Amino acid sequence: MSRESWSREIARIIYGLENSVRGNVLDIDEEGFLVIRIKDNVLRVKDLMEKNKLDVAYIRILPLIERAMETVYEAFKTVIELTGYKGTLNPVYPMKVNPIPLIVECIFKYGEKYKWGFNTGSLSELLLLLNLAEKYTPRTLIYDGVLTEKVIEALLKLHRLGWRIIIDIESEHDIEAIEKYPELEIGIRVKPIIKPQGKWSTATGLSGKFGLTINTLIKLREDFKWITERATLLHMHPGSQISRFSDVKKYLREVKEVFSELLELGFENISMVDPGGGVAYPYIDLRDGDEESPDYSIVDYAKTLVSEFLGLSKHPDIVFEGGRYIVSSHRLVVASVIDVRPYSAIHNKENLNVLQEYVEKIKSISDAKELISRIRGILGSIKSKSSEETSVRQRELYEDLVAFIENDIAQKISALLVEGKIDVREVLEDQLLLKILTSPSRRYILNMSIFADIPDAVLVDQYFQVIPVQGLNKPPDVLASLADLTCDSMGEISHYISPGNLLNTNSIILTNVDLRLLAIPGVKLKLRGVPLPLPLKGETHYIVVLDTGAYQDTLAMRHNLIYGAPEVIIDTSGDSVSIKIIRNGESRT
Amino acid sequence: MSRESWSREIARIIYGLENSVRGNVLDIDEEGFLVIRIKDNVLRVKDLMEKNKLDVAYIRILPLIERAMETVYEAFKTVIELTGYKGTLNPVYPMKVNPIPLIVECIFKYGEKYKWGFNTGSLSELLLLLNLAEKYTPRTLIYDGVLTEKVIEALLKLHRLGWRIIIDIESEHDIEAIEKYPELEIGIRVKPIIKPQGKWSTATGLSGKFGLTINTLIKLREDFKWITERATLLHMHPGSQISRFSDVKKYLREVKEVFSELLELGFENISMVDPGGGVAYPYIDLRDGDEESPDYSIVDYAKTLVSEFLGLSKHPDIVFEGGRYIVSSHRLVVASVIDVRPYSAIHNKENLNVLQEYVEKIKSISDAKELISRIRGILGSIKSKSSEETSVRQRELYEDLVAFIENDIAQKISALLVEGKIDVREVLEDQLLLKILTSPSRRYILNMSIFADIPDAVLVDQYFQVIPVQGLNKPPDVLASLADLTCDSMGEISHYISPGNLLNTNSIILTNVDLRLLAIPGVKLKLRGVPLPLPLKGETHYIVVLDTGAYQDTLAMRHNLIYGAPEVIIDTSGDSVSIKIIRNGESRT
Repeated sequence: MSRESWSREIARIIYGLENSVRGNVLDIDEEGFLVIRIKDNVLRVKDLMEKNKLDVAYIRILPLIERAMETVYEAFKTVIELTGYKGTLNPVYPMKVNPIPLIVECIFKYGEKYKWGFNTGSLSELLLLLNLAEKYTPRTLIYDGVLTEKVIEALLKLHRLGWRIIIDIESEHDIEAIEKYPELEIGIRVKPIIKPQGKWSTATGLSGKFGLTINTLIKLREDFKWITERATLLHMHPGSQISRFSDVKKYLREVKEVFSELLELGFENISMVDPGGGVAYPYIDLRDGDEESPDYSIVDYAKTLVSEFLGLSKHPDIVFEGGRYIVSSHRLVVASVIDVRPYSAIHNKENLNVLQEYVEKIKSISDAKELISRIRGILGSIKSKSSEETSVRQRELYEDLVAFIENDIAQKISALLVEGKIDVREVLEDQLLLKILTSPSRRYILNMSIFADIPDAVLVDQYFQVIPVQGLNKPPDVLASLADLTCDSMGEISHYISPGNLLNTNSIILTNVDLRLLAIPGVKLKLRGVPLPLPLKGETHYIVVLDTGAYQDTLAMRHNLIYGAPEVIIDTSGDSVSIKIIRNGESRT
Repeated sequence: MSRESWSREIARIIYGLENSVRGNVLDIDEEGFLVIRIKDNVLRVKDLMEKNKLDVAYIRILPLIERAMETVYEAFKTVIELTGYKGTLNPVYPMKVNPIPLIVECIFKYGEKYKWGFNTGSLSELLLLLNLAEKYTPRTLIYDGVLTEKVIEALLKLHRLGWRIIIDIESEHDIEAIEKYPELEIGIRVKPIIKPQGKWSTATGLSGKFGLTINTLIKLREDFKWITERATLLHMHPGSQISRFSDVKKYLREVKEVFSELLELGFENISMVDPGGGVAYPYIDLRDGDEESPDYSIVDYAKTLVSEFLGLSKHPDIVFEGGRYIVSSHRLVVASVIDVRPYSAIHNKENLNVLQEYVEKIKSISDAKELISRIRGILGSIKSKSSEETSVRQRELYEDLVAFIENDIAQKISALLVEGKIDVREVLEDQLLLKILTSPSRRYILNMSIFADIPDAVLVDQYFQVIPVQGLNKPPDVLASLADLTCDSMGEISHYISPGNLLNTNSIILTNVDLRLLAIPGVKLKLRGVPLPLPLKGETHYIVVLDTGAYQDTLAMRHNLIYGAPEVIIDTSGDSVSIKIIRNGESRT
């Protein structure tokens, strides 16, 4: 297998720019810079940072939110028209996904023509909404939080502004709280039973945190007969980011069943169904159903949802609540590289001249494995020695040998791969060799805090796509782990999904300097470091983390008191593009 | 095995009040209220909340910080005196553990007599320190973050105030940055090789985020010969919360070895050793070496550390850096109960009259298992039916049967346990029965956000002790899961460690109303819910989460825009106790 030459097309694939939600808004220009294309404008990310003297920033591309809303609306509109479905689409934005005022205003503004509504669950979110509501047309609000006097007061105020208010009831407490306000409609939130794959599978089941069981509902209906009449909505929620279409289909089937059950139980005024969130955002868009890569599109989702209810005699109005889909793509975290360090051990070659000869002799995968195995034998014996026998020389030797495997032997194997003397499948079959050949050789220290900027990376091991702002017209130099500014060992990213399965080529791709495996055609490869160019001395480099627009703003932590970042807000006004800089959180370093 | 009667002693054990760091500061009064004892004052937590009209609060007991500092200092002082060790103790507070100004001031104030220093790693922390420094005597500062111009400027300012400044170097970049400031001492941070058990084991090893390998150090020393002379500190860090004494011992042995190695390598001015954090806080104090329950005391730690270096010809000064140990205990999160709901399914008894008869017939564990198995068979067949066949009646039946197992059968087994007809060991040996008998029957909705108030519960699955503020003179009524205000299924606590192994009795303890297994003498039992009293109608109940003083303040997230809480600051001044209320974040509900 020969070594592939590089192209911008390959770069777009390797760095995840082939994304159905972002489209071509993020692209690579001819000189290899990452650019943002809005209307006819082309903005280099590096220029945005340098011109504004920013070391770190959140770039917010608001037109990406508009684009996602339009995509959703058009998908449902088309399906509804084609099938003759009698219900309407009622999109709502679940505020928890990103309740910062800028984004909520976007939803109001871009959602004007779609009457995009809201879903909220806390008093603070409600108060924010109330603050903004007077500037826009009234919407629908689905409230699914705790009910208190202050909450009800806020809901009534919105109602007086012309809003339609639907409140999920979850207990006697809730029902008693709203009994005397007939203007407030009731949503019945039912616990789904099916368990989709993924991080949020505990969200469903009879013991899930939210919703009623059918039997609890029956009991409540017996005690409070009037709720039958006031209930207008069935609400369910399957958990976040459901990546498999088969799970989506099973879940939507269950929603339909529950809807039919509620009609059977006498809830005849229910005319709207909210199947909750769950629509997965393609953090990588490989369509394989893996956790970060849904195997369905928004059109697939719309078709399934509509066709599920199409067979019923009553076609409910459909609520779309996919918040990740709407806002994930809009925010990029950009951070400068502060330092580049060797990732693990380094060695002084002169100590290991004897071993060098053995490396020269490696001609096959089994030669390599044998040499590694012998060296690991020595490593084991050094480690097992009692402390009295160890000395500084032995720790040096230990480190030398580790470095020797990670550098010299790894590079020799890579060379043999390129020469075709080793087949890449032999490496794929050997866990240890694969680990060595996909490990980082450098640690980049970045001007960021993973806890503040991409908290889900530590909270739920969320995968975020990373890309450098320049040098994209050449193969990357090294695999690198990305360490942040915090004094926390969790503050580091060292995994990367290399979508070789999308490559239309026969050749493997290696990094340029450390000769690590970067991509194998036909194989989705998990790397243990991010492929990056080496910064030139004296030049500022930046790394970008994509798709950080959902949840990351409010889950941000203040570890080591590092938090906040200047913001670069990109918006359009007619045909022109506006760029606004908001300076805060600038003193990170 | 009979059923145990309740006592305050049992309550202290079950609710984790037997804690070596908190001592008797938290206690239960004769009427069963949770109290804070400071000097001769006894404060009921419930009164503190009600008198100040608080639904939620962070109670900060500052004397607990003073107490922990004194405990550490006295432990080392005693060991040093007894052994004739020639080095001194130099405690430093790692700011990342809690850098809010109130706590940093506590360290300054209570640390005056011990010359308690600081360890910081970010510019923001440094600027805070600089802000406060002039009010207190100068201290030692170990800086282990990224080096930039602004950082060096701040360090030089502290130095001019009389502080001793030691900077860990990690790369060429760092060395070049401080070369021209001879007043700044150098710390050599070395990567430890040993891997302790626990959540933070990735903190060590040659590829750990922090520190140098010996070979990298040798290379840097060749390139920058002057660092040999300026280096005064060896710094290592084994990761947080090392719960096993055997790991601590191995690690401290490695620190000693590296110290000897550095002397061998010519770093002759190194006269201080900082073995980093890692001293585990007893979130539960069972001394069994499990993750939250270290099997060693601070005296054990001091003895081991001192005796490790006692055999060397040069006795280095010792740095103590255990931040969790110092601040964990000081903060309690108190939140009111907003609603109590059934945990999972409920059932209408009339549907299941036939099954009731079978329950009556259960006489042994095998009868119970057989009945459960038959019901699960029916459940499986309902679930496997295709959707066309299911109906609302079938979902009702499904829920009824689940509820029947969780309630009726569970309570029958409990009754037989109490009568001695079933041996509790038979339940312990059966995973399914154990699960049923330790599951929650209620869900309490609390006025808190787990993401904001105890973020480590979701971030690293940290165990925090939970205790009600009242009713502690009676056995708890139910096992309950604790759901927070966020619209997030992760916002729920449903595990509890029941330290039956500390009980001096032969009888099992059950909850009063739902008859769940609460404690088994001789057994450390993991419950799936928190034992709590049922709130009386019309009465405000509060739940307290203990030991939230380390990390939780800065890791706090703002999910659903819920964050911040009023603070109740308890301090002493001479013999009197002061209570200060700071009102913020009051509008959560």
